[in-house]
Amino acid sequence: MAGRNHLYVPGPTNIPDEVLSAMHVPSEDHRSPIFPELFKPLLEDLKKVFKTETGHSFIFPATGTAGWEIALTNTLSPGDKVLIYRFGQFSHLWAAMAKRLGFEVIVIERPWGEGIPLDDLEARLKEDGQHEIKAILATHNETATGVTSDIGGVRKAMDAAGHPALLFVDGVSSIASIDFRMDEWGVDGAISGSQKGFMLPAGAALVAFSQKAIAACDTAQSRRAFLDLKDQLASNKDGYTPYTPSIPMLYGLRKALDLLLAEGLENVYARHYRLAEGTRKAIAAWGLELCAKPGFESNTVSAVVVPAGKDARDVIATAYSKYNISLGAGLNEVAGKVFRIGHVGDMNDVSMLGAIAGVEMALLDNGFDIKAGSGVAAAIEYYRTTA
Amino acid sequence: MAGRNHLYVPGPTNIPDEVLSAMHVPSEDHRSPIFPELFKPLLEDLKKVFKTETGHSFIFPATGTAGWEIALTNTLSPGDKVLIYRFGQFSHLWAAMAKRLGFEVIVIERPWGEGIPLDDLEARLKEDGQHEIKAILATHNETATGVTSDIGGVRKAMDAAGHPALLFVDGVSSIASIDFRMDEWGVDGAISGSQKGFMLPAGAALVAFSQKAIAACDTAQSRRAFLDLKDQLASNKDGYTPYTPSIPMLYGLRKALDLLLAEGLENVYARHYRLAEGTRKAIAAWGLELCAKPGFESNTVSAVVVPAGKDARDVIATAYSKYNISLGAGLNEVAGKVFRIGHVGDMNDVSMLGAIAGVEMALLDNGFDIKAGSGVAAAIEYYRTTA
Amino acid sequence: MAGRNHLYVPGPTNIPDEVLSAMHVPSEDHRSPIFPELFKPLLEDLKKVFKTETGHSFIFPATGTAGWEIALTNTLSPGDKVLIYRFGQFSHLWAAMAKRLGFEVIVIERPWGEGIPLDDLEARLKEDGQHEIKAILATHNETATGVTSDIGGVRKAMDAAGHPALLFVDGVSSIASIDFRMDEWGVDGAISGSQKGFMLPAGAALVAFSQKAIAACDTAQSRRAFLDLKDQLASNKDGYTPYTPSIPMLYGLRKALDLLLAEGLENVYARHYRLAEGTRKAIAAWGLELCAKPGFESNTVSAVVVPAGKDARDVIATAYSKYNISLGAGLNEVAGKVFRIGHVGDMNDVSMLGAIAGVEMALLDNGFDIKAGSGVAAAIEYYRTTA
Amino acid sequence: MAGRNHLYVPGPTNIPDEVLSAMHVPSEDHRSPIFPELFKPLLEDLKKVFKTETGHSFIFPATGTAGWEIALTNTLSPGDKVLIYRFGQFSHLWAAMAKRLGFEVIVIERPWGEGIPLDDLEARLKEDGQHEIKAILATHNETATGVTSDIGGVRKAMDAAGHPALLFVDGVSSIASIDFRMDEWGVDGAISGSQKGFMLPAGAALVAFSQKAIAACDTAQSRRAFLDLKDQLASNKDGYTPYTPSIPMLYGLRKALDLLLAEGLENVYARHYRLAEGTRKAIAAWGLELCAKPGFESNTVSAVVVPAGKDARDVIATAYSKYNISLGAGLNEVAGKVFRIGHVGDMNDVSMLGAIAGVEMALLDNGFDIKAGSGVAAAIEYYRTTA
Repeated sequence: MAGRNHLYVPGPTNIPDEVLSAMHVPSEDHRSPIFPELFKPLLEDLKKVFKTETGHSFIFPATGTAGWEIALTNTLSPGDKVLIYRFGQFSHLWAAMAKRLGFEVIVIERPWGEGIPLDDLEARLKEDGQHEIKAILATHNETATGVTSDIGGVRKAMDAAGHPALLFVDGVSSIASIDFRMDEWGVDGAISGSQKGFMLPAGAALVAFSQKAIAACDTAQSRRAFLDLKDQLASNKDGYTPYTPSIPMLYGLRKALDLLLAEGLENVYARHYRLAEGTRKAIAAWGLELCAKPGFESNTVSAVVVPAGKDARDVIATAYSKYNISLGAGLNEVAGKVFRIGHVGDMNDVSMLGAIAGVEMALLDNGFDIKAGSGVAAAIEYYRTTA
Repeated sequence: MAGRNHLYVPGPTNIPDEVLSAMHVPSEDHRSPIFPELFKPLLEDLKKVFKTETGHSFIFPATGTAGWEIALTNTLSPGDKVLIYRFGQFSHLWAAMAKRLGFEVIVIERPWGEGIPLDDLEARLKEDGQHEIKAILATHNETATGVTSDIGGVRKAMDAAGHPALLFVDGVSSIASIDFRMDEWGVDGAISGSQKGFMLPAGAALVAFSQKAIAACDTAQSRRAFLDLKDQLASNKDGYTPYTPSIPMLYGLRKALDLLLAEGLENVYARHYRLAEGTRKAIAAWGLELCAKPGFESNTVSAVVVPAGKDARDVIATAYSKYNISLGAGLNEVAGKVFRIGHVGDMNDVSMLGAIAGVEMALLDNGFDIKAGSGVAAAIEYYRTTA
Repeated sequence: MAGRNHLYVPGPTNIPDEVLSAMHVPSEDHRSPIFPELFKPLLEDLKKVFKTETGHSFIFPATGTAGWEIALTNTLSPGDKVLIYRFGQFSHLWAAMAKRLGFEVIVIERPWGEGIPLDDLEARLKEDGQHEIKAILATHNETATGVTSDIGGVRKAMDAAGHPALLFVDGVSSIASIDFRMDEWGVDGAISGSQKGFMLPAGAALVAFSQKAIAACDTAQSRRAFLDLKDQLASNKDGYTPYTPSIPMLYGLRKALDLLLAEGLENVYARHYRLAEGTRKAIAAWGLELCAKPGFESNTVSAVVVPAGKDARDVIATAYSKYNISLGAGLNEVAGKVFRIGHVGDMNDVSMLGAIAGVEMALLDNGFDIKAGSGVAAAIEYYRTTA
Repeated sequence: MAGRNHLYVPGPTNIPDEVLSAMHVPSEDHRSPIFPELFKPLLEDLKKVFKTETGHSFIFPATGTAGWEIALTNTLSPGDKVLIYRFGQFSHLWAAMAKRLGFEVIVIERPWGEGIPLDDLEARLKEDGQHEIKAILATHNETATGVTSDIGGVRKAMDAAGHPALLFVDGVSSIASIDFRMDEWGVDGAISGSQKGFMLPAGAALVAFSQKAIAACDTAQSRRAFLDLKDQLASNKDGYTPYTPSIPMLYGLRKALDLLLAEGLENVYARHYRLAEGTRKAIAAWGLELCAKPGFESNTVSAVVVPAGKDARDVIATAYSKYNISLGAGLNEVAGKVFRIGHVGDMNDVSMLGAIAGVEMALLDNGFDIKAGSGVAAAIEYYRTTA
């Protein structure tokens, strides 16, 4: 099809042209004397994005899924108890992984559309007087439902319960897009990936761990090798890596970090809020609802519920085949029930208006009872008065 | 500003990612034995785009402006009479160039917003019984006003008058986007550039000349060297160039031609018509008018007239600084009176809807009395029912 | 420093310009309906490079190190006995990993410079009448010493002993460069990475497993999640991946496979042999010796032993800082004793002559008793008479 | 053929990877308010490379050939007398162009292999008491024969004769590689192109003119339009261009200027001298001779004379087809008699040693009586003792 594909899946996200060009580099010896001049500042600047001064950041040649495993196997021993709320495909998958890796997983079901219930968490932690729960697995932004949980609130609940569990946060689709404060919130393991807010291809698990988590590596009995944190630490301290890194990814990350830090993280968060809010205005103007319940709306992805009798997959198929727009599908329990509009990464007002207009066409084509231009009009009014 | 720039000037146009990657090539010896395997098919495929089988195509390392000069100095002698209708900045510049190059230029003023008046042309040619007019300079698509003239009609007028003048056509912003038929219309010199419908950076004058024009080179007394057609012909016949070509441009042209021919020229024209027509629906919905008078509407660029009391430059400035949209300015006589939306090259429905939405915001911000979403709604209805 | 860096480390290797350009692509939805059109043929063509028709190929977003772990944890259970010969840094690391992952590792020390002793292997397997050894870990090409072992011979030894152990082969620096025949040699797990013969950046573990190995997944008790083969199989059968892939790597792999298959694998092997043999002629002309003992010489990397009293690190430092040549260092037991010249991947005769000339300069600068031009002369004579 | 092409033609030269990546940019509005932030510093930094503070620099979307024409037609009138020494293909072509453009050209033949004879020039200028000669056309570096003339000496000869002619210098293959001093030498028009020392693709004529030359534009009667200096001046003063520029070329030029100025022009000259001198040592070791007579040797290209009975074209063909090395051919009077090795642009010691080794192979293959390794040995000794 002529013209560019319009990519609004919630990851992998659009890669800025500058980042793609920065990745277009010849191969390079990763053991050269000058390699650390590239690598060390990456780790330092990553810490700024994670907002940690006391923790360590890591770049694994892997993905966010590996990030989940890194947190679990480096700090825990088989049979250790971990607690996770399950309210979407990605919290589901993390819980499933934890079981496969031999942990005793307390999975608490929540409606898909809600996030972590802070009171419930506090109560459960208070009940755990023996501190058998060794880690809380918290999904900051559930990409499948467009739900953001309150991680600062999670920390408060833990503190209120005086509970010493490690706090691991899946920030794959939040970090670098939505407010995240590792040190302030006492996050022990922050897990992200390169292909969302970092505006890179998939292929790097970007993670950070607290000193407490690092210390836990010494006693953790879970077996690991490729994903071992201590191997990384040992090499990283001199500016090297334990095995061959992707040179293009490192240069891409350099440029992406430059862009994020030049814009300013608070501005990045504010931009994502505005882009999301405009999208939400459009969805409301169409008379449709978010999957996310009030208070849980995500600023990186909106999952839109289709009315009974409609199949969200038809909207997605029309958008793709007729208009060259890529939208996210509903996964697992919400398959067919929602379609998802990503508003994360290298986006601005006009990008989102293109998405909204395109979705309008696909909705109209599929017999949705909406007025042409209504969503765009609502978003336009919001964007132009808040720019 | 975050997110990509949205480029809707009528040139240089958006370059497809595939073309940019095709241009990312190492340097290469342009005198190697395999160079002709690249170069010769380019000339052949260019002829397909110009729709000529009997003419010759050329790739000059220059721009469309050079193309104008190539036509004039290779075929004419100082003092030769040429006729041109002036109805926009680019026909103005071509006329001015012809004067500077020593020709006797009959410049016929027409309102900016109209194109070549066929009856007037026929009458003038009939009056020229001595055939003193040696060439007609016809601006196929006047980029400044968004006006397309009827070149087939020009040929008919010339034939009706039995006039032997050479017919030179400025197709910089039409060829590869708007129906163009060199052989059928008896065009003697077709002039284009790389940076519009060919979806490349500026830097190549893409031109084609009829056998009649080529023959005229032998008697033309105008001095030329760098822009000499015969030098090109002599080298091109073996697949080489008389001076060093831009290797990236040649590979980019290869890819651009592949894209155009794979889509099919008729489909390319139809796509440009649809994109333009949707834009025109939006403009009408806003209650604004085109600079182009009915029958002259261009499918590559729409020049929109702002009402008295408004300055089009304000719309453009707002669009750029607040929304990262690049629009075309009014030039010369229409400066401040029009802004221009390019819908040429690597574009599709959603691209245009982004543009239209962005322009709506800029219009509203500048106090235009339009309804938010109205233009987008009109375009949406058109696009989705004609896709 | 002016001019390009000359990269002769044995990985990451030089990336052909065509591959880099192929990787310069916009982001793309990895769940789109057309994604399988890209992905499925990659798996099929990978099988051609591994030379397997009955096995399965896999692309993990990880590295060769992960490949080692994939083989072990997907097919074995903690406590299982595995046998490995240790004769270089990479066989050392694989053995160490196997221990960390909970296996009972029989590590047999061999001189660094030799490879797998086939008679010894056969004898040990015959001794293991109870078939307690569940897997043989064979390092096809020990990158640290420039030693290639005879994997066909390993299979023969196993067959002679009638031993049913799984055969896992580290082919990170051999596959796609040195003759490798998965099916013919009965290899159960073939492990490679993207950054050597595949001429890509690091970031993909390219592996293939036999049906026997796949079947072993069902009983293997080792815990794994990110590196699980069955998760890949389940997604791959429909042309998708279980988690987000690196889109640029997939397009790069497409181009790299195209290049390898167009050249022809036998020609690729022959080219690597020639490049290596010319390098060896040069080394001999300098009066220096390979680390590899006769019969074990690698066609992808030559580790050159420096005489007593010299430190190979000085040669490497001079080459890098004075001549912008990157050579491989000696690792672990051979640190300071060898430097390594990689002749793997996107290389040809003139590339190697540049390397040889550069090394000559560094040797002369460091007081080695060699004659300027001697190594180059020997290589020239070899290359030009065998081209 | 596997592995990269080794490009040693004296232009187009190798483009540094950083420059190619800098050129990989999306399209951009060349009339945007921020465009001058890119464009103006380019003109300023170009002046540094030309070493002029009082002149004006220009970037034409054309080639070096156009640069010759720009100098002639902007400053002279038809019939004006110009003087040029002809001693190679490029001085030949410039002389021929001047004739075609209507000037009275005094062509003084010199042996191909020599440069401008300063005494002869002074004598001729002294004879021209009426100052009928309006311009001297001086080829600084004759690329066809590898001959560099003394432009400072030309100025001295002119001054000694008290002659007011304009001094135009073809520095296409010297500027940015060989010492050039526009202001100090009183050069009125300095002509270069992007594809040699500037390490870019062809496609930009990079030129600079003195105030005296600019003043001459006002009286020059030669017709010009596309190549008009005053049109450029008028637009450039605000940071714009009179017609659409190639955006990638401008970004590429930005990066190339950054590289040149970071290395330092004196260092760039010294590097080219060393690379050339090493090449000359090799040529001497082979017992072959330069086309350039002593004192005229070029630091950007060496034209090597083959002995009677040999055809240089065979050497070039072997180098290309058997070893993937691109060498320059002999042109016109020296066709078949010389082959040319370019040592200009993005080159370093090891690059040149690859070239020398490759040429050795091609010479040996063609039965030249040389000793394998002899040229490389001579160059190695030179390079390593002067690095």
